[in-house]
Amino acid sequence: KVNGERLWSRMMEMAQIGGTPKGGVCRVTLTEEDKKGRDLFIKWCEDAGCTIEIDQMGNLFARRAGKRADLNPILMGSHLDSQPTGGKYDGVYGVLAALEVIESLNDLDIVTEAPIEIVSWTNEEGARFSPAMIGSGVFTGEFTLEYAYNQKDKEGVTLGEALDQIGYKGEFPIGERTYAASIEVHIEQGPILEAEKKSIGVVTGVQGIRWYDLKVKGKETHAGPCPMHLRKDPVKATLPILNEIYQLAEQFAPDSRATIGDIVPTPAVRNTVPSELNITVDLRHPQSEILDEMHYRLQEIISQYHNQNGIEVTLEEIWHSPPVAFAQDVIEAIQASVEDLKVPHMKMVSGAGHDSVYLSRVTPTAMIFIPCEDGLSHNELEKAEKEDVINGADVLLNTALKLAMY
Amino acid sequence: KVNGERLWSRMMEMAQIGGTPKGGVCRVTLTEEDKKGRDLFIKWCEDAGCTIEIDQMGNLFARRAGKRADLNPILMGSHLDSQPTGGKYDGVYGVLAALEVIESLNDLDIVTEAPIEIVSWTNEEGARFSPAMIGSGVFTGEFTLEYAYNQKDKEGVTLGEALDQIGYKGEFPIGERTYAASIEVHIEQGPILEAEKKSIGVVTGVQGIRWYDLKVKGKETHAGPCPMHLRKDPVKATLPILNEIYQLAEQFAPDSRATIGDIVPTPAVRNTVPSELNITVDLRHPQSEILDEMHYRLQEIISQYHNQNGIEVTLEEIWHSPPVAFAQDVIEAIQASVEDLKVPHMKMVSGAGHDSVYLSRVTPTAMIFIPCEDGLSHNELEKAEKEDVINGADVLLNTALKLAMY
Ligand SMILES: NC(=O)NCCC(=O)O
Ligand SMILES: NC(=O)NCCC(=O)O
Repeated sequence: KVNGERLWSRMMEMAQIGGTPKGGVCRVTLTEEDKKGRDLFIKWCEDAGCTIEIDQMGNLFARRAGKRADLNPILMGSHLDSQPTGGKYDGVYGVLAALEVIESLNDLDIVTEAPIEIVSWTNEEGARFSPAMIGSGVFTGEFTLEYAYNQKDKEGVTLGEALDQIGYKGEFPIGERTYAASIEVHIEQGPILEAEKKSIGVVTGVQGIRWYDLKVKGKETHAGPCPMHLRKDPVKATLPILNEIYQLAEQFAPDSRATIGDIVPTPAVRNTVPSELNITVDLRHPQSEILDEMHYRLQEIISQYHNQNGIEVTLEEIWHSPPVAFAQDVIEAIQASVEDLKVPHMKMVSGAGHDSVYLSRVTPTAMIFIPCEDGLSHNELEKAEKEDVINGADVLLNTALKLAMY
Repeated sequence: KVNGERLWSRMMEMAQIGGTPKGGVCRVTLTEEDKKGRDLFIKWCEDAGCTIEIDQMGNLFARRAGKRADLNPILMGSHLDSQPTGGKYDGVYGVLAALEVIESLNDLDIVTEAPIEIVSWTNEEGARFSPAMIGSGVFTGEFTLEYAYNQKDKEGVTLGEALDQIGYKGEFPIGERTYAASIEVHIEQGPILEAEKKSIGVVTGVQGIRWYDLKVKGKETHAGPCPMHLRKDPVKATLPILNEIYQLAEQFAPDSRATIGDIVPTPAVRNTVPSELNITVDLRHPQSEILDEMHYRLQEIISQYHNQNGIEVTLEEIWHSPPVAFAQDVIEAIQASVEDLKVPHMKMVSGAGHDSVYLSRVTPTAMIFIPCEDGLSHNELEKAEKEDVINGADVLLNTALKLAMY
């Protein structure tokens, strides 16, 4: 069993970095706050005797040697970046639980056969740079390094520049690390475990995600003298489109999701009809065929509104992360651990994307979930019970031991 | 008659300051560009022999002495600030036409009985600081100086700070100037004169305007794991409200206007359902009773959506500028001038707010309009014909002479 108090106090200490008045965290990727979080994490890892390596994407790897250097390491970890109005648990829990596993092994004087590594991936959240999970995506060959470096935030800063600015563009080449297995512990970010009164979710896969940029173009004009019937108002034109997007989610209920997270008018001025609206669309479904159907329906909706009354509507898909099934042997190792530890548990599918999605393409991977209050996440009030936090770390420790010992 | 070429070339020179690639102007109030525009205007006025005074609101006054210092001056002018994606004519035309009147009087060696003053009002547009026409509003006692100084832009900079930053918080006390009459020449910013093939509009009044801040509050949550039926999505909740606002405009067609110029989600992130949307609403109508009815209907709409499904909807009126009727004698002086000059003309009501709205409360006031292409304004492609620009300045000159000579 891990030292739960140490883990909890480290989580609370890390939550100070970018801590918000409402008790949440704003430690957005590649900001000064992210740098401080990374610095602290590296210090803790070094104190625990780990060797640090930083790759060209700014992904952080902390290695604890095993008895046999010829064996591929077991990977554990998640991400330290947060949403702008994020919580204390999303991501950071998986990183610090992995550190706690290594510290517990140190305390117990256990040397595993295979080495063990902790990872903290760059820009998992996708809140500043699209897409989400780009650090693990580049690591596993889903995106090129060049593609990632060129992604821009809303201010026009590229990811490459932001890495340089905080001094975390590492030297270590991408893709030269291979692992025997990968395990990530995370809060569920949804309401299922809480409703089912389970402390642990054995995660068997992740639902599919498609991200789009929707642009509705009209013509900017004065709010006063221009008669309503002469306007090409993109706000007015957007309403039925967004309505249909929400209906699309309803049509494929209950497992479908549709989210309009951002709307940016240009110009954004009280007394001017905007010339255009830039809108983000996030569609999800656990089944590949249904997500594809939603994708085609969305395109139909758009084409139906395109060029009506001089309004130009365009849709660009900027990311597609198909549904993922995790590796059977890692799932079984987790399942065996929760049974050994006798914690209430259930199998489930993740509603959020995670770095494990990309990891699973190159390494046998699975995840461990713990409940969070009201299923609330991407919210400053995000909350997890200490008991569940500790249970999850215990399951991680036991699973890692099983996998690293043979 | 004025020197049309001089006027035109000055307008084109001023349009360089904040000039945009699309041929428009971005000279937003109290920015560095606005400062440059003010500096250039003051230089021109001084070269024309005028005395400059700047009041505590940053309003600029340039005075040409008359024969009799005991008479109240005739005021002409408008504003030099622009929309962020504005045109070369809105506001600046009225200021530089007034300068051209003074230069023409210089050329013709005419000294009027009453003094003549040019004014350029601070923040007419209301694009950066609310409300519009705040410079003339403070001048005429509609708002206190303190209220104006405390208005904030989106970055949280106050109008008072912005005045200090560009060095245009003047010494001259507010409200110590009185005028015999005030005339403003402006582009119509609407399609009527063009449609009616008239070069001059004799403006008899201005329609009423009401500005609101609409806030729709839900609960931020993760775009993936949170099921649709558990969400309190402010974007989804906003759609029917905005629909009803557009229907409200239709109900009082054809003279009503409803504009949703700005929508700001918080947070503004792809994979998070926002916690709230801040939306601006601009309602207009030329008749006071109908604008009031629209106001009450809007409140009914809001109350009907308030607290449905855990969504909180609030509406705050932040500005009300009732319909205005201009002064009969100034209208008649303009009418006589257009008849003398034999330019095609018509009487009309302004759809846009203007500084003359506030001036008319303390001074006999009226306006002169010229057409603009497609009625387009608050747009970089805003365009007026040189011939109309010169006609408007001629009418201004003749009207000012009538009023300043008795
Ligand atoms: N875990 C998490 O919040 N990931 C962000 C990617 C997503 O949008 O699902
Ligand atoms: N003339 C002009 O564009 N004024 C801005 C105030 C308004 O919104 O009408």
